[in-house]
Amino acid sequence: MTDYDASRTGDVATNETSNLIAASKVEGTNVYNRQGESLGTVYDVMLDKRSGEVAYAVMSFGGFLGMGESYHPVPWDMLEYDESEEGYVVDLNKEQLEGAPSFDERTSPDWSSPEYSRSIDHYYGVARPAI
Amino acid sequence: MTDYDASRTGDVATNETSNLIAASKVEGTNVYNRQGESLGTVYDVMLDKRSGEVAYAVMSFGGFLGMGESYHPVPWDMLEYDESEEGYVVDLNKEQLEGAPSFDERTSPDWSSPEYSRSIDHYYGVARPAI
Repeated sequence: MTDYDASRTGDVATNETSNLIAASKVEGTNVYNRQGESLGTVYDVMLDKRSGEVAYAVMSFGGFLGMGESYHPVPWDMLEYDESEEGYVVDLNKEQLEGAPSFDERTSPDWSSPEYSRSIDHYYGVARPAI
Repeated sequence: MTDYDASRTGDVATNETSNLIAASKVEGTNVYNRQGESLGTVYDVMLDKRSGEVAYAVMSFGGFLGMGESYHPVPWDMLEYDESEEGYVVDLNKEQLEGAPSFDERTSPDWSSPEYSRSIDHYYGVARPAI
């Protein structure tokens, strides 16, 4: 991460097409609910090393829920890209997000435990092979 | 990307486990050849929106080939993570990289053209459904 420059990809590359998108561009992209309300942004994405698939989007909900910055891992498949909004749409309401697995500055997600990712998948009703 | 902080994930999250890794952690990770020589770093990863798979690692080879900073998209499946090196290993030599599809500060990869990704896959002998 030493030479990271947030604008770098845009400087030298077309970083998004209809089928491909740069991970660095996904980070920071706005996330909306079905009602078009802004929920927050994509903070990071978790990749499954074995399958090579994007497993989770870690969404950042600063302020939205009336707490400090909080991070909500959401199964990647729940995000739909909306060209007109230039952002992702998730079919989740405030109550669903409040009850969802999350972490903040003082806590850490335990990705090393299969139980942790299973708890996220279970919460959102997603079935997948154990990670 | 406005609130990007390169150290952010490390501050609040376990960002790598045996099976999951944060995209923000992949970026900047060293890449070696089979002889243990450092080739450069991972500059970005390209995600396939439809399949949700990581399609390409864009590797940055600043100086290694005696040119300025250059960017080489390599099919993700060609990268193997080496725990002891804490980096990725690719089975490629200097000659193979010199002849590979690449771009630099003055040129852009044409990701919008299926021909472009096909040319990369073809160069590295990777078969995949058209992206």
